[in-house]
Amino acid sequence: MNVFEQYESEVRSYCRNYPTVFEYAKDDILTDENGRRYIDFFCGAGAVNYGHNNDYIKEKLIRYLQEDKILHSLDMYATAKRSFIEYFEEAILAPRGLDYKLQFVGPTGTNAVEAALKLARKYTGRSGIFALMGAFHGMTMGSLSLTTDADSRTGAGVALHDVTHIPAPYMFPALDTIEYIETILCDDHSGIAKPAAIVIETVQADGGVYPLDIKWLQRLRALCDKYEILLVVDDVQVGCGRTGTFFSFERAGIVPDIVTLSKSIGGYGLPFAMVMLKPQLDVWAPGEHTGTFRGNQLAFVSAKAGLEYMLEHDIEAETLRKGAIVDQYLHREILPLDERLQVRGIGLMWGIDFARIPGASKEMITACFERGLVIERAGRGNDVLKIMPPLIISDDNLQKGLEIVKEALQAVLAAHPAQ
Amino acid sequence: MNVFEQYESEVRSYCRNYPTVFEYAKDDILTDENGRRYIDFFCGAGAVNYGHNNDYIKEKLIRYLQEDKILHSLDMYATAKRSFIEYFEEAILAPRGLDYKLQFVGPTGTNAVEAALKLARKYTGRSGIFALMGAFHGMTMGSLSLTTDADSRTGAGVALHDVTHIPAPYMFPALDTIEYIETILCDDHSGIAKPAAIVIETVQADGGVYPLDIKWLQRLRALCDKYEILLVVDDVQVGCGRTGTFFSFERAGIVPDIVTLSKSIGGYGLPFAMVMLKPQLDVWAPGEHTGTFRGNQLAFVSAKAGLEYMLEHDIEAETLRKGAIVDQYLHREILPLDERLQVRGIGLMWGIDFARIPGASKEMITACFERGLVIERAGRGNDVLKIMPPLIISDDNLQKGLEIVKEALQAVLAAHPAQ
Amino acid sequence: MNVFEQYESEVRSYCRNYPTVFEYAKDDILTDENGRRYIDFFCGAGAVNYGHNNDYIKEKLIRYLQEDKILHSLDMYATAKRSFIEYFEEAILAPRGLDYKLQFVGPTGTNAVEAALKLARKYTGRSGIFALMGAFHGMTMGSLSLTTDADSRTGAGVALHDVTHIPAPYMFPALDTIEYIETILCDDHSGIAKPAAIVIETVQADGGVYPLDIKWLQRLRALCDKYEILLVVDDVQVGCGRTGTFFSFERAGIVPDIVTLSKSIGGYGLPFAMVMLKPQLDVWAPGEHTGTFRGNQLAFVSAKAGLEYMLEHDIEAETLRKGAIVDQYLHREILPLDERLQVRGIGLMWGIDFARIPGASKEMITACFERGLVIERAGRGNDVLKIMPPLIISDDNLQKGLEIVKEALQAVLAAHPAQ
Amino acid sequence: MNVFEQYESEVRSYCRNYPTVFEYAKDDILTDENGRRYIDFFCGAGAVNYGHNNDYIKEKLIRYLQEDKILHSLDMYATAKRSFIEYFEEAILAPRGLDYKLQFVGPTGTNAVEAALKLARKYTGRSGIFALMGAFHGMTMGSLSLTTDADSRTGAGVALHDVTHIPAPYMFPALDTIEYIETILCDDHSGIAKPAAIVIETVQADGGVYPLDIKWLQRLRALCDKYEILLVVDDVQVGCGRTGTFFSFERAGIVPDIVTLSKSIGGYGLPFAMVMLKPQLDVWAPGEHTGTFRGNQLAFVSAKAGLEYMLEHDIEAETLRKGAIVDQYLHREILPLDERLQVRGIGLMWGIDFARIPGASKEMITACFERGLVIERAGRGNDVLKIMPPLIISDDNLQKGLEIVKEALQAVLAAHPAQ
Repeated sequence: MNVFEQYESEVRSYCRNYPTVFEYAKDDILTDENGRRYIDFFCGAGAVNYGHNNDYIKEKLIRYLQEDKILHSLDMYATAKRSFIEYFEEAILAPRGLDYKLQFVGPTGTNAVEAALKLARKYTGRSGIFALMGAFHGMTMGSLSLTTDADSRTGAGVALHDVTHIPAPYMFPALDTIEYIETILCDDHSGIAKPAAIVIETVQADGGVYPLDIKWLQRLRALCDKYEILLVVDDVQVGCGRTGTFFSFERAGIVPDIVTLSKSIGGYGLPFAMVMLKPQLDVWAPGEHTGTFRGNQLAFVSAKAGLEYMLEHDIEAETLRKGAIVDQYLHREILPLDERLQVRGIGLMWGIDFARIPGASKEMITACFERGLVIERAGRGNDVLKIMPPLIISDDNLQKGLEIVKEALQAVLAAHPAQ
Repeated sequence: MNVFEQYESEVRSYCRNYPTVFEYAKDDILTDENGRRYIDFFCGAGAVNYGHNNDYIKEKLIRYLQEDKILHSLDMYATAKRSFIEYFEEAILAPRGLDYKLQFVGPTGTNAVEAALKLARKYTGRSGIFALMGAFHGMTMGSLSLTTDADSRTGAGVALHDVTHIPAPYMFPALDTIEYIETILCDDHSGIAKPAAIVIETVQADGGVYPLDIKWLQRLRALCDKYEILLVVDDVQVGCGRTGTFFSFERAGIVPDIVTLSKSIGGYGLPFAMVMLKPQLDVWAPGEHTGTFRGNQLAFVSAKAGLEYMLEHDIEAETLRKGAIVDQYLHREILPLDERLQVRGIGLMWGIDFARIPGASKEMITACFERGLVIERAGRGNDVLKIMPPLIISDDNLQKGLEIVKEALQAVLAAHPAQ
Repeated sequence: MNVFEQYESEVRSYCRNYPTVFEYAKDDILTDENGRRYIDFFCGAGAVNYGHNNDYIKEKLIRYLQEDKILHSLDMYATAKRSFIEYFEEAILAPRGLDYKLQFVGPTGTNAVEAALKLARKYTGRSGIFALMGAFHGMTMGSLSLTTDADSRTGAGVALHDVTHIPAPYMFPALDTIEYIETILCDDHSGIAKPAAIVIETVQADGGVYPLDIKWLQRLRALCDKYEILLVVDDVQVGCGRTGTFFSFERAGIVPDIVTLSKSIGGYGLPFAMVMLKPQLDVWAPGEHTGTFRGNQLAFVSAKAGLEYMLEHDIEAETLRKGAIVDQYLHREILPLDERLQVRGIGLMWGIDFARIPGASKEMITACFERGLVIERAGRGNDVLKIMPPLIISDDNLQKGLEIVKEALQAVLAAHPAQ
Repeated sequence: MNVFEQYESEVRSYCRNYPTVFEYAKDDILTDENGRRYIDFFCGAGAVNYGHNNDYIKEKLIRYLQEDKILHSLDMYATAKRSFIEYFEEAILAPRGLDYKLQFVGPTGTNAVEAALKLARKYTGRSGIFALMGAFHGMTMGSLSLTTDADSRTGAGVALHDVTHIPAPYMFPALDTIEYIETILCDDHSGIAKPAAIVIETVQADGGVYPLDIKWLQRLRALCDKYEILLVVDDVQVGCGRTGTFFSFERAGIVPDIVTLSKSIGGYGLPFAMVMLKPQLDVWAPGEHTGTFRGNQLAFVSAKAGLEYMLEHDIEAETLRKGAIVDQYLHREILPLDERLQVRGIGLMWGIDFARIPGASKEMITACFERGLVIERAGRGNDVLKIMPPLIISDDNLQKGLEIVKEALQAVLAAHPAQ
């Protein structure tokens, strides 16, 4: 690991949680160069929902490479891209009754968000954006202006503008945040102008695993309609089946105006990102948002294969089934261990909140890693242990992983007795 | 192509230049689904310097995939990444006497620039940045604030701040732009504060193919030293051998404080980006700039293989040799055709400037495409035809491509007679 | 009036409410060029609390002019200024146990606010400011960024930055706004950084006459102390006795860190403005905030005389006494006329809120003017008739003015029957 | 002076140059409380062009006060205001063939500039402003964004946006700054969008007394016409006859779109400010820019009287005559004393530039004061001694003042021998 410490910037972070050098990965297992195996409850921060090096997808990738099909083509027309578009429209959008045009952007979630912001501002002619407290939307200047994490914001080195942060609905129980938004929109002395868009994650992941209430989502959609504000759903982390439906907003029966996708939409962990926009919003001028790696053909191949795999293996239902296992385990085995703990979650994304046991979440990362489990934390104070396995995790490994969490928790709690 | 027109956003652009659907690519040739072959003078906007689907690199990629080595690992330690770092330090940096730490960012050039801006601002505690008129540094909010293209800037939908644009040295012959910068730094009534960094491309590509003068680059380096301003070289497009040396700044014998790399550094057209920073600048806090696809292992494999290939095949020297062929051809065969034409270039990046023949550059794209050549344009008014083949282009295809340019030019000029 | 319509910009506004040409003014009476007299419930927007052309002050001004004492001296030392400072410290600050240094700024309230913002930012090293929804703090770019009126903000023509608008405490009964502020300060994912200052009016005037609760003010002071945030009270309109104490914050027993004063502090309607700052905040560099008319000596004379007059005539107590008359009249004579009406007020500033009778407030202005009363409106939708006579108004004219309001109201209500 | 040191903020500045307490002022003489008399070469920073306590104006002010004419009336119609408007249109604008509407703003120059910026942005729909390096336009956030002095800008405590600073024409002799502006306007890769307005002082005062060339001003006017950019002339300091014509732009025969006036337009040193705008620009909504002291009636009285006095006493011609005296004196008596000195000026505003004698300008202030002359410095490094007497200065006092400058200079130079 000397090489990394000597030559890689101090900005490196996850490696600090997991002090080993990984070499192989398969489905729900990571293997380090010493052959030690780790169950993966981290899932590449949500980028490998269909598992590491999924065989079905892998075979397509290798064949594509072997055939010398075109790899890099920017936004020129190419056969792999056409196959993806056709499949996405037919197998994903049409069955859900969704009508979107697709924009392929630089292959990062943050780039998709940047594109969404530009489009919303252009379409409406307004400059302001509303985002929720607790939100994470990326680390480039535009998306970072939405992101709420204080350290990330400070990192900008300049003031971040044109965004108003609205309390998340779970923050002030006595405050109806939809009414709050409507009030400040209607009050000619609120100091806050009507925004181009309201951008949300339907489940705040980085904020600490907070699924937003279905009713609230529906009322937000109605509010946006009433005031002609665009509703942007950032599904970069919680899309692609994570919550039990392919798009995270399906559970609320709402249709966003713009959707951003990245991470698992690439299928195999290959960089990929896209924006879905309602056809009437397509006021883009050609080339108005570009990027050298937009439309990476290899990722189109894995993206399509990933969708095929997802549908073939009924991943949405499987996610709900496995999510129920986690839910039950957390309530039966974890919560009873200490009344200071809280759990929240949906589908296969769950959080154990250690806010009331200072220091414990960090110790949990290490205790789990030592026991063969890769898991991260998030949320306010970084206090939330985030359980996010690949959706294809075997029941056996899911159970083992949960048991490791429990064992680790018992060890950590021993050092943090309740008073 | 109906599928694209129906479902893909109007933002798509290159496809409008080349109305066909590509299927295969090999080295310096693109092939469409009808089997028609095109010589590539576009080179994925600089992303495939070592050719499309380079066999040497391809073999490594396929093997890596077949072995189920880890693909997605964020900034966890991994063997492929270590191999890349070691090789980059030993084979690239050390022989050039360069001492940099490496930061792997979201796999787009714009992301590397965003990281460089954050770091420069943090390190210096200053917020302003100087960029050159004519510059292109990306399309996300931070990098876009540097980018000069009016349409791209308007696309932001909000005002772009904290950047001062300095006249490029070629713009006002009577103005010594180094003196200009020094004057506004020293003048307590210039209205412009000392910046954190001056960001440049040593060859402005999107600005219209303008190689900056070596003396000017050296004086800029001295100026930055004198005033403790960071010099950031954006080598996203003109690095990786394009100018005849691996880093574009080598010809001037200068050492930037920060260097951004993307495009061809990935070796095979896979998304990849990195920042090189002098060790003393490494004030990053862990995780202060992140991204899900930073450190994509498959790209580490192709990146390392690409470097091996480059060194093995003496690409730097080859680039200079082929560049001389282009140079000679342009001066002997092209310029004499019409005195309104201008040419500029370095290494294997050349521009034919049609500024004085309105409308001609666009017609050239089409005329070349019809004759089997893929080529793009750039620059002020989009008036500069940009010759940028893969560095590995065969002499034969290089010659053929140039002849197509000449033929196309003769056809286009026929419709634009000099008065 | 042709002259005005022909040559004065369309920006003129109050003249549209009162279509006549005024010539004389005395105490609580305005007289137009036709000799028509109007009771003044407008009070120069709060600038002539001690009455128009107050004889006591007038005599001092004329004598100062006759003696050729220095009038214009920027911030050079001058005898009139010294007299003012001495008197202000001894007769105003010392008896109240207040310890402030004084800064004389350009003679407008907005300039005082601009200075306060600069100082708060410099002292704390933070850039953000919190202001309340409903606030008005001025019309120059810095103060305008705090002001909430949508039309005024749009008038800026550029985005206004670095200010977060907090719900005013009366806006959401279920929301404890002090807790709200504390939560967003403590939440590392609120997206909102700790501000340099919280700027308030203790009675929102332009927002629609909303006196803030004493407990709330005290809790805000405690919150600012706890988090080392500066509390700035903008007393431009509601200082100088308007609320029944000289400083509006006295009723809450709090001591702001910075206080802005203008309007009636000049005593006679002469332009004047100042900032009071706690001694430890005095980190100003010499000349760091300037203005040609800072420290206008004639206004120092009238300002001192105004304070003398105020103390001599027990204006604070008189204000409370007259305020009670208005209070009683509004509740006994006005409110019973229509259940859609609401009244709010403190001291000699009262509002009748016509929000539920659309259009009525504008008609009230005209109906009052026709009956010999000058009165303005403010607030959300401009729906609040604002009763703000000079503090020295005679009981007789106060009563007459109130009766005119009642008569006008009866006439207006006749055209707006409740359904 | 203890009172000031104890109670007045450290921001006070001019008092540090002139350590005494002033009591009287008359025409061109200031008198301190010890009866010591000082010739005034400072002129209230340009605010008392017609002399301190000018008898003609004084008489009108006292009578107005004695008659209890209305003093404070915001922008209600009033007789004094009408008289001013009529006189200004007939005696000032009409004879010069100028057609402007008048806007009365908060009584500070900075407020006039803030209004001009709003109007220019609203009228054009553009946000950017061009200002010249060396410019001073005020200290509130909007005007401060134009002001170039580094210390003043830093004082903002936040980044200042939306302004591009253009090199002043005297800064780079080899650079044609009109061509420079045109180039960046036409270059679609300059990174700088077409501005709403170009704001200039025709003579940069704070920048160090730089009269701009007539040809340059005419070419700028033509450029603004060509590109439909508004030309704003800030005549706050150099208007009202200072340069030898009432408006400073008259010498160039140009007509600005917007003109800002303050300082001496009030006639007597009373706070006053106004904006002149071409009738077609009058797109203001009523009340879109306001201020409590806009349209101060007492200042209308003195402003009108000041104009009468100016015309009656042929101040424009007198200014040129006296200016020639200064010009001659500086070239015959001052410049020969040391070859490091430079002089510049126009009308009755002249600068002696000590840039090449570090420290000398500050010593000059003190040496002059000790000899009975009040004079200030400005410019880069604060190195320019600024000779700016009231325009009505007697020939005798002008001569005496110049002799004091010479004596002081000889004393100062003795301590700074040329090497």
